[in-house]
Amino acid sequence: MPTILDVARKANVSAMTVSRVINGSGPVNEETRRRVEQAMKELDYYPNSNARSLVKKETRLLSLLITDITNPFYTTLARGAEDAAKRLGYRLIFCNSDEDPAKEKEYIEMLLSTQVDGVLFAPSGDDSLKNLRLLRKQGIPFVLIDREVPNLECDKVLGDSMLGAHKLMEHLIENGHRRIACITGPKHISTARDRLQGYLATLKLHDLEIDPSMIIETEYTLGSHQEVMQKLLELQTLPTAIFAANNFVALGAIKELRKHGWKVPEDISVVCFDDLDLLQDLDPFLTVAKQPSYDFGVFGVQMLVERILGTATSNFRTIVLPPEIIIRRSSRNINAALE
Amino acid sequence: MPTILDVARKANVSAMTVSRVINGSGPVNEETRRRVEQAMKELDYYPNSNARSLVKKETRLLSLLITDITNPFYTTLARGAEDAAKRLGYRLIFCNSDEDPAKEKEYIEMLLSTQVDGVLFAPSGDDSLKNLRLLRKQGIPFVLIDREVPNLECDKVLGDSMLGAHKLMEHLIENGHRRIACITGPKHISTARDRLQGYLATLKLHDLEIDPSMIIETEYTLGSHQEVMQKLLELQTLPTAIFAANNFVALGAIKELRKHGWKVPEDISVVCFDDLDLLQDLDPFLTVAKQPSYDFGVFGVQMLVERILGTATSNFRTIVLPPEIIIRRSSRNINAALE
Repeated sequence: MPTILDVARKANVSAMTVSRVINGSGPVNEETRRRVEQAMKELDYYPNSNARSLVKKETRLLSLLITDITNPFYTTLARGAEDAAKRLGYRLIFCNSDEDPAKEKEYIEMLLSTQVDGVLFAPSGDDSLKNLRLLRKQGIPFVLIDREVPNLECDKVLGDSMLGAHKLMEHLIENGHRRIACITGPKHISTARDRLQGYLATLKLHDLEIDPSMIIETEYTLGSHQEVMQKLLELQTLPTAIFAANNFVALGAIKELRKHGWKVPEDISVVCFDDLDLLQDLDPFLTVAKQPSYDFGVFGVQMLVERILGTATSNFRTIVLPPEIIIRRSSRNINAALE
Repeated sequence: MPTILDVARKANVSAMTVSRVINGSGPVNEETRRRVEQAMKELDYYPNSNARSLVKKETRLLSLLITDITNPFYTTLARGAEDAAKRLGYRLIFCNSDEDPAKEKEYIEMLLSTQVDGVLFAPSGDDSLKNLRLLRKQGIPFVLIDREVPNLECDKVLGDSMLGAHKLMEHLIENGHRRIACITGPKHISTARDRLQGYLATLKLHDLEIDPSMIIETEYTLGSHQEVMQKLLELQTLPTAIFAANNFVALGAIKELRKHGWKVPEDISVVCFDDLDLLQDLDPFLTVAKQPSYDFGVFGVQMLVERILGTATSNFRTIVLPPEIIIRRSSRNINAALE
């Protein structure tokens, strides 16, 4: 880990000058300041985290980085993480990367300057690797949740996206569906790749045609799925069912379908990953692969705290929490007569 | 604002000893450490925030303190706050007080040690006054959102709970309801008091009886509203409608009603404050006083940043954002025949 002396050497100034730049505690000319800041950046030197690692000061503060604070999957996960943190004597702050690697990087830099003991990290995608390496370099323990990042060994709490996709597809095929569209998430997110793979594998298993025009990529966020649905509705042979990569994709799809006069499930069935938690009691509608999101948070914090306290085994662990298929009104048997 | 010398004087030690305790940078005996920590506590001395105010270091980091991360009212508000913060060049971390003043206090202390430029603060209740005074003492700007705290002059973004309650009650009365129960929120939260007052004032306006057994207090959180509903269902003359203090209270009430075989709206109408945002497109059901929660976040951050930059007027401002009444299937006219 770099020290203040390394920074001074690299910037060709005295340690006192570096200290002045960091603390704003005295006059430094603009050109020198820039050189020191450049050296700090190149060395990945973070004043506070370095000070901390020197004295091993515990803050008993954890951070949970999620990618979409409006998605119930993540808010329920946050609830679980918070309950576990409280039980273990930690506080938890939340950051929302908004599926944006640049924003994620800003938050990671902030967390390095602030003093957190560890980070529960839902990566915005494969590009998160750089940000995670930054954490590791600074010796901050982290646990990945929900999504994998290739080429990184670490503790993880993941769902089983392949299995969930397979089971949702089996449900549709059992109910007579043969032309099933897949509205998949961004390719740079592991869960999107796994769900797509589950879709493809299940079609193959049943010797069903794979039609590339029926596979459309979109964002996981709620925003507008208008264009995507437009594409789908312009197909010559329309699908009888949609497998949506998550709850927000399904919501967006249903909204657009309704705009065009299509009824779910009468005209088309819709199934998806992740539930809309608050709807469970009121008027559950969507057929889903429900992931135990609360448990993601609980297990994630437990693993993280074990890693912080050094009570974890030295080997990294992966916990896989399988989804539960819940069949509701948004999907129907197309061979059965409508009620 | 207290200095390290004040702490040293109070603890009857040298400033170097105080510094050692703060930084863990040398041996200090247990008894001395305790005395220093006690002195810091009594003086409200926070090492980092003091250092910061000395050098006026900007962090461009804001904190949003909400009371329930699973409630869509707050997650949509958070979304608005985040979008506004990004536009203005700030990052935002979230804390969830979980409606618990003790937890809120811990977060405030953490925010004082961490370096934030300002706090957007949804108070857990009237007891938040102490925590807000702590922020003010340390010179950290804040803006209250959603809830008021008596005896505190500050910037605020509030809804109009009285008006919303009045309009929901008018809707019920217009539709033939005369026995309307009120499941109100905790008395120590300003919105709960205002909504109850709106309920009472509207009954009086129409010369309707106020029956104390029909007014039941509960929590705003989703948890179990079982006991509360039990009380209501044991009444000799049952209500034909329920005015619920928020969305989660309504959800809990409907769940319990269904358990006991009551149908909404056939057997009883239910209206409430705050929408369930994700339901809007899918299967909107609840009659609500919908608050512009996204705008709460946007205006809150704007006011906060103006206060931080010193571009705000010196007088504190209050922005009131009125709710919109949306009538849906959960309430019906009891004089009309059922379809």
